[in-house]
Amino acid sequence: MYQSMNLSVSSNFTQRSLFESRFRKPVHLKPPRVSSGPESDASASKTLTENLISLLRAVPDWADEIKERGMQQKRTLYTHEKWVEHRSSLRHVHHLFSSFSSRVILSLIPPVFFFTSVAVFIASYNSAVDLDWLPGIFPILRSSSLPYQLTAPALALLLVFRTEASYSRYEEGRKAWVGIIAGTDDLARQVICSVDGSGDELVIKDLLLRNVAAFPVALKCHVTYGSDVARDLQSLVEADDLSLILESKHRPRCVIEFISQSLRLLKLEDTKRDLLESKMLHLHEGIGVCEQLMGIPIPLAYTRLTSRFLVFWHLTLPIILWDECHWIVVPATFISAASLFCIEEVGVLIEEPFPMLALDELCDLVHSNIQEAVKSETIIRNRIVEKIKLHEFKHSPNGRYRS
Amino acid sequence: MYQSMNLSVSSNFTQRSLFESRFRKPVHLKPPRVSSGPESDASASKTLTENLISLLRAVPDWADEIKERGMQQKRTLYTHEKWVEHRSSLRHVHHLFSSFSSRVILSLIPPVFFFTSVAVFIASYNSAVDLDWLPGIFPILRSSSLPYQLTAPALALLLVFRTEASYSRYEEGRKAWVGIIAGTDDLARQVICSVDGSGDELVIKDLLLRNVAAFPVALKCHVTYGSDVARDLQSLVEADDLSLILESKHRPRCVIEFISQSLRLLKLEDTKRDLLESKMLHLHEGIGVCEQLMGIPIPLAYTRLTSRFLVFWHLTLPIILWDECHWIVVPATFISAASLFCIEEVGVLIEEPFPMLALDELCDLVHSNIQEAVKSETIIRNRIVEKIKLHEFKHSPNGRYRS
Amino acid sequence: MYQSMNLSVSSNFTQRSLFESRFRKPVHLKPPRVSSGPESDASASKTLTENLISLLRAVPDWADEIKERGMQQKRTLYTHEKWVEHRSSLRHVHHLFSSFSSRVILSLIPPVFFFTSVAVFIASYNSAVDLDWLPGIFPILRSSSLPYQLTAPALALLLVFRTEASYSRYEEGRKAWVGIIAGTDDLARQVICSVDGSGDELVIKDLLLRNVAAFPVALKCHVTYGSDVARDLQSLVEADDLSLILESKHRPRCVIEFISQSLRLLKLEDTKRDLLESKMLHLHEGIGVCEQLMGIPIPLAYTRLTSRFLVFWHLTLPIILWDECHWIVVPATFISAASLFCIEEVGVLIEEPFPMLALDELCDLVHSNIQEAVKSETIIRNRIVEKIKLHEFKHSPNGRYRS
Amino acid sequence: MYQSMNLSVSSNFTQRSLFESRFRKPVHLKPPRVSSGPESDASASKTLTENLISLLRAVPDWADEIKERGMQQKRTLYTHEKWVEHRSSLRHVHHLFSSFSSRVILSLIPPVFFFTSVAVFIASYNSAVDLDWLPGIFPILRSSSLPYQLTAPALALLLVFRTEASYSRYEEGRKAWVGIIAGTDDLARQVICSVDGSGDELVIKDLLLRNVAAFPVALKCHVTYGSDVARDLQSLVEADDLSLILESKHRPRCVIEFISQSLRLLKLEDTKRDLLESKMLHLHEGIGVCEQLMGIPIPLAYTRLTSRFLVFWHLTLPIILWDECHWIVVPATFISAASLFCIEEVGVLIEEPFPMLALDELCDLVHSNIQEAVKSETIIRNRIVEKIKLHEFKHSPNGRYRS
Amino acid sequence: MYQSMNLSVSSNFTQRSLFESRFRKPVHLKPPRVSSGPESDASASKTLTENLISLLRAVPDWADEIKERGMQQKRTLYTHEKWVEHRSSLRHVHHLFSSFSSRVILSLIPPVFFFTSVAVFIASYNSAVDLDWLPGIFPILRSSSLPYQLTAPALALLLVFRTEASYSRYEEGRKAWVGIIAGTDDLARQVICSVDGSGDELVIKDLLLRNVAAFPVALKCHVTYGSDVARDLQSLVEADDLSLILESKHRPRCVIEFISQSLRLLKLEDTKRDLLESKMLHLHEGIGVCEQLMGIPIPLAYTRLTSRFLVFWHLTLPIILWDECHWIVVPATFISAASLFCIEEVGVLIEEPFPMLALDELCDLVHSNIQEAVKSETIIRNRIVEKIKLHEFKHSPNGRYRS
Repeated sequence: MYQSMNLSVSSNFTQRSLFESRFRKPVHLKPPRVSSGPESDASASKTLTENLISLLRAVPDWADEIKERGMQQKRTLYTHEKWVEHRSSLRHVHHLFSSFSSRVILSLIPPVFFFTSVAVFIASYNSAVDLDWLPGIFPILRSSSLPYQLTAPALALLLVFRTEASYSRYEEGRKAWVGIIAGTDDLARQVICSVDGSGDELVIKDLLLRNVAAFPVALKCHVTYGSDVARDLQSLVEADDLSLILESKHRPRCVIEFISQSLRLLKLEDTKRDLLESKMLHLHEGIGVCEQLMGIPIPLAYTRLTSRFLVFWHLTLPIILWDECHWIVVPATFISAASLFCIEEVGVLIEEPFPMLALDELCDLVHSNIQEAVKSETIIRNRIVEKIKLHEFKHSPNGRYRS
Repeated sequence: MYQSMNLSVSSNFTQRSLFESRFRKPVHLKPPRVSSGPESDASASKTLTENLISLLRAVPDWADEIKERGMQQKRTLYTHEKWVEHRSSLRHVHHLFSSFSSRVILSLIPPVFFFTSVAVFIASYNSAVDLDWLPGIFPILRSSSLPYQLTAPALALLLVFRTEASYSRYEEGRKAWVGIIAGTDDLARQVICSVDGSGDELVIKDLLLRNVAAFPVALKCHVTYGSDVARDLQSLVEADDLSLILESKHRPRCVIEFISQSLRLLKLEDTKRDLLESKMLHLHEGIGVCEQLMGIPIPLAYTRLTSRFLVFWHLTLPIILWDECHWIVVPATFISAASLFCIEEVGVLIEEPFPMLALDELCDLVHSNIQEAVKSETIIRNRIVEKIKLHEFKHSPNGRYRS
Repeated sequence: MYQSMNLSVSSNFTQRSLFESRFRKPVHLKPPRVSSGPESDASASKTLTENLISLLRAVPDWADEIKERGMQQKRTLYTHEKWVEHRSSLRHVHHLFSSFSSRVILSLIPPVFFFTSVAVFIASYNSAVDLDWLPGIFPILRSSSLPYQLTAPALALLLVFRTEASYSRYEEGRKAWVGIIAGTDDLARQVICSVDGSGDELVIKDLLLRNVAAFPVALKCHVTYGSDVARDLQSLVEADDLSLILESKHRPRCVIEFISQSLRLLKLEDTKRDLLESKMLHLHEGIGVCEQLMGIPIPLAYTRLTSRFLVFWHLTLPIILWDECHWIVVPATFISAASLFCIEEVGVLIEEPFPMLALDELCDLVHSNIQEAVKSETIIRNRIVEKIKLHEFKHSPNGRYRS
Repeated sequence: MYQSMNLSVSSNFTQRSLFESRFRKPVHLKPPRVSSGPESDASASKTLTENLISLLRAVPDWADEIKERGMQQKRTLYTHEKWVEHRSSLRHVHHLFSSFSSRVILSLIPPVFFFTSVAVFIASYNSAVDLDWLPGIFPILRSSSLPYQLTAPALALLLVFRTEASYSRYEEGRKAWVGIIAGTDDLARQVICSVDGSGDELVIKDLLLRNVAAFPVALKCHVTYGSDVARDLQSLVEADDLSLILESKHRPRCVIEFISQSLRLLKLEDTKRDLLESKMLHLHEGIGVCEQLMGIPIPLAYTRLTSRFLVFWHLTLPIILWDECHWIVVPATFISAASLFCIEEVGVLIEEPFPMLALDELCDLVHSNIQEAVKSETIIRNRIVEKIKLHEFKHSPNGRYRS
Repeated sequence: MYQSMNLSVSSNFTQRSLFESRFRKPVHLKPPRVSSGPESDASASKTLTENLISLLRAVPDWADEIKERGMQQKRTLYTHEKWVEHRSSLRHVHHLFSSFSSRVILSLIPPVFFFTSVAVFIASYNSAVDLDWLPGIFPILRSSSLPYQLTAPALALLLVFRTEASYSRYEEGRKAWVGIIAGTDDLARQVICSVDGSGDELVIKDLLLRNVAAFPVALKCHVTYGSDVARDLQSLVEADDLSLILESKHRPRCVIEFISQSLRLLKLEDTKRDLLESKMLHLHEGIGVCEQLMGIPIPLAYTRLTSRFLVFWHLTLPIILWDECHWIVVPATFISAASLFCIEEVGVLIEEPFPMLALDELCDLVHSNIQEAVKSETIIRNRIVEKIKLHEFKHSPNGRYRS
């Protein structure tokens, strides 16, 4: 009957498809530009330049694949032992030796390789001019370093502030999950405490707790790329509920609906139900923060500015350094590019925080906490009741001397 | 009857017109100074200087038009695929090649062009003096770079902190919208859950949900320039309500009024209604944050300081660099101006965050979520009720062994 | 009867006078040290030094007068059009040409003039020594610049962080007013919605809404210097209430008292009244933030440190630069002083944020919003009621098929 | 009867004494290490080194005494007039001339004096080597400045960030007091409004308001060193209550107990009492923030790192500067030490914010506000009631035309 | 009966063991890599390199042991006296002399020793080449310092921002504990105030207060390494409750369960119980913040970047400095490594804040506050009741002139 509301049904389809394309299909990992490879293959006569281009494209694609595979690895929560290792004096050695297997480092190969090549080229050219191997018309590429010394602090600040902005997004994501986990824990505890009726109540309570445990899982799958929500949820909710959740356009909200409707069917006092329902706002806020962190990046103008600044800086760096360093411009450019692009890379990697957080383990903890709470509930209550009885027994001969 | 209150009706008109002039008329995009063009045309004898001026004015006006057109483009929310591309190794290449179509870069053309010209002029002059083409009375324009090296960190810090202040406004805008979206979602969910009465109730519920969905749209139009509120709202609210909203001085508040009055006419318990009404505060706060972000910029003294510092710095930069760089002052000034004005430009662009946020899509999501929730509500409730019945059926032979 | 409480009546007077001296008498704008002028005039034989001193004192007094006059100008809220102008490409030109009328720049004249004079003096002295115009005992004032290069980053950081601290106070003030405006709006809306009784109720409602609108005005006058609270409030509250408010020691709190007492006399349910009263906390917090921003500046030790660091730096700068710059120390000192003192000046100006915020317009908006809400209330309610009737009429032939 | 609970009475004594030693005995200002002076006096044959040590110890002790005396001076709240002076153009002159009476500057004398002496010693030694006054085996102490140029930004950043961390503690303290003042004001207002019964009620109300006014005073004395809580509280609470509060281990909590118990004895509705009691959480949070700011400093490792970095830097600075500055290393070291140690000193001074805040005046304001509110309460209520009567009188001839 | 819920019992075991491995077994302090020592011992022929390696491993292991022992020392809360000492002028001397016993410094020995050795090696090699002790094919290792000057600000910023990020985690931990302590204090106060029934009630009240005092202790033990929860809790809760808590998978939550169940068995009004239960959310949030601070470190990519940047920088520093410093590269590298690795070390140390906070004393304070509150409760109530009686007695002759 409510479907007769004329809430712009026409625009419904486009929105749905739009929505699905955003959150549903983790189809192909390879970026679409790979398909432009054949186009460039079309021309038969491959020149050196084209070979270089295809080489350049092969290397970043390989680097991206490694990076993306790394992004989908599960993170684990730190334990006390890991902290001991984390602050051990040998950490620098570990970090150094892990450099060659580090995904961050590997994904830096394309730009660093490129700028080092440019440095080699410029150094060769300048040497050639120096040795008069080229006609006199070719000038030596060199310049004073003063303009670079004056803008170096700006570049450094820009880079590090960009990284800081990414880091504060990471922190915001982490804090949002603190709120989500605390919210679900508290909701579960109140439900466990408040509901202890007969058969029907227990069925709803069961359903309610399952959905409370399912909420962080659904949200996790919503915000991480290439997650399999069906597999993650199947141990938590029953099969028919799962199918309903999978069909819905927005799974975390659907789980909230389940919680909300279950609460309404419970026999509770009105104030208690209002209290429990009001907790739903925390969950909505959790969804909101996560979705916006995912949907709204650091302003692209800012990101591009940093990237372009870096590229221009390193393209001209060999020219600036030629007078002072000659062939040492090659290692100098290498080290500068490796350092500064690494800062930028880390900033970009932690800009979308969810693949970097151990969300899987957090969700498992919620589930495990609820199970534990259900188990311990009756044990603890019986213990307290026993104590009261024991106390009454002790004092009964003396005739309830306190009342 | 209430209009007889003597609440300063006299000052009413001025306030209204003041208000309208601020938020209503997105009249002409071209800034008023364009009309001063004819004035300078008035004089018949055009000197070289005047030509230069009119040239200078043409370029920034063209740059501004491009920029403003870009500001009104719709932003889209980032998807998982976009993030993969965002962190791809080839991003630097993309950013580099998109430089020439970037609006930020284009809007930098006027200042960069100007300061490069100044550098060319100073370099020419100095060369002329060097070659004794000018009488001996003309001194070479040159200076020690030491004072610049001492103030360079201050300029860099000032620039980057200014950008940071803008970025934190951007973040504040983003977080305000997290709150607004979560608030409307939660309000809608509670209304859907709580109201399920007969005909009259359904009419009010329909109206209520439409207005809840309309609130973010009205607020979005309120805070973005040149938005067409009538077109955006027509699919959400009925025509006569729309006309009422359009007539009101402050549309988002008018939508809140609709929500508020609808809530009062619903048959709800008092505590429930108080709870729902108390949620309105979040919406008011959302309005407050958005309006103040729009109404109160970063202190102008701060903005002007950065701008003047930059201008003075670059005007004198060629003089400072002459001794060390000679004609290389021209590319050096070009690169320095391009880098530092770009940082400033990005800071100014994200100072008013709303055109940079994907508000349209966020509003669509609210609408789509409400539709989904309305649809799924009965399905989910029936599912749960079925489960309870199934459970009762299972246990009925055993004679309700749990009650 | 309650006055018989012995709550330290004796200390009452001193507190009152203390309080008044703080917030009441915006007596004379000229700082008291001006009165020390005649003292120095007392001696008849004016030496050159004394002339210089009186000159120095005339200039800063003139600069201060301009600055203070500027502080009392009303700020306006930014509109969409202003934002377009704000980010226009020509802004740098505008900022440059407005330099000579800028109050910030004018108030920089005393220190910049002084340090430039010192530079001129040192340069003249050194030239005189160079040209052997002075006995050989006078050494050239010069030094290596290395110590300055090593401490330059610390000075820059200190200056910019000091400015940042001021800016975060500005932001805190702005956010406090977001809360105050949202709080009063929400309170007004709830009062308008909840109260619709007979004659007596309407009188109280009228009084209540006037005082809700009066609260931000009273707070604004409380925190800005030289404001005329009687004039600003007279259009909002009745004359006899105004006199009561003006007599009270703390006007914003007195307005809260009016609101509080009016609420008690309204016929409301208890929960509703508690809800409305609980909103008063937001207003108290608003008062608290504003008063402490005004009462507690950035630690004076910090402010003085920055000021002294700057002064020492610029006093010795000509000596440091002499070897490299010779007579160019004069423009170099001028530019350095202008830049760095300007950063400091901006930091000091925005440290007390209230004169920089468009509080007048914000207060007008509250008033105008309340008027609008009162007007639209009945219109909107009637519209909804009509809709319900229309719906019933439509369905009545079919016999209320939904109930 | 409750004391029979076996809540570890044994550990009670140690805790009590521990507690007392922490918060009770503001015994002797002189730090215990002063008593180690005689030890060094014990040896009769005083060498030059020992004289230097005793000299060094005399100076810092004198500096500390001045500093601590300054810490206990009362701060005053800023007024509008003070702000005018604060931003006056002559402030730099004032700051400069107040340098010699500034406690911060005086407390810098020991380190600055020491490092300048070291610089004098190194300069003398190097001159002696230069002039061949020493055997050839003694090398000149000099070094390249490059390592210092590379680490100078790190030192500057470390220093300024350390100061920032202290400043953010200052701000946290300030904001905690905003909350405490707003909380007590709101609690007082609600008590004044809600209670208006007969004799007994008035006695409790009186007691309640006294304790509400006493709470910030008790907390102030708890967190500031050498405060006399008995003197400060005697005008607020009655003598026998005062003795009870003075005996308690934790006075602010004892005042909260008084408020809490008084509330329970008032005849209030349950929801109202719950509302008032729930405000107590704000007061507990205020205590919590203040106690932890006092109990937990910035990590000592961080503080020590900064201090050691500074000391090493200045010990070797004369060596670094010798080549470029020769005897100018002495003023250079002096200025560098004065600047950088001053930044560190300010950071340490504002690390414990409470002596720097005008808590006394804030407490007086709370008291004065409550007195004012009590006085104005009946006046305002009568005014409103009169208005209603007047309105009824006006409309009675027309026969209640509104009801 | 509830255990029959099929909440994925299968995955229960793995989770449990996983959980236990994380939080239970503080088994062996020595990191597992120590066991790899024998492996390298396996080969009989120890070369010089291997000796060096085993030497290198011995030193960091020794440093780590000292560090970890230090981490487990109890911190104490700062008192007023400690603050006086903290800001005393002699603090720099103390910090300097404590350097050699400082754990931070000792744990820096391995990296600083290593990089100084590298500097010695490079200096020796270069000297050998200089003196023609090596064949002409060996080049001198030297380079221009310009690339280092350009990247120095980036390194400094990265280091200090990394430290800032750690410090903000420390502050977050501190603030979480402010919330936990204020929450438990407030809960205890309300329980003490609200419950004063007969025998049974007192038993539950006793149990409740013990568990409220036990909560921060349980949480403290949960988040600190190597804590003995049984010993810390035994004075607070009874033996059988303790065993139940020790058996539970998550002790702090188990204590919350005890509190929650006790509250349900108390005879309270519903609104009061809801109010008390709603406070549990604060405790859950406290758990959440603490667990996530422990479980989720600063992104490892960031930490490793800083570490690798530092290592590369110092490995090449002697080459960079050779031209300017010759054998002074050794002390220069030593000082640079000591300074910069110390900043990094402090950042890593305060990244996990809990061992650095005085949690033991905070927990003791909660316990002591509850004891005090229990004791003072009846005293204060009797005092107030007496006052009321006294007042009634005074006024009874006059015949209740106030009622």
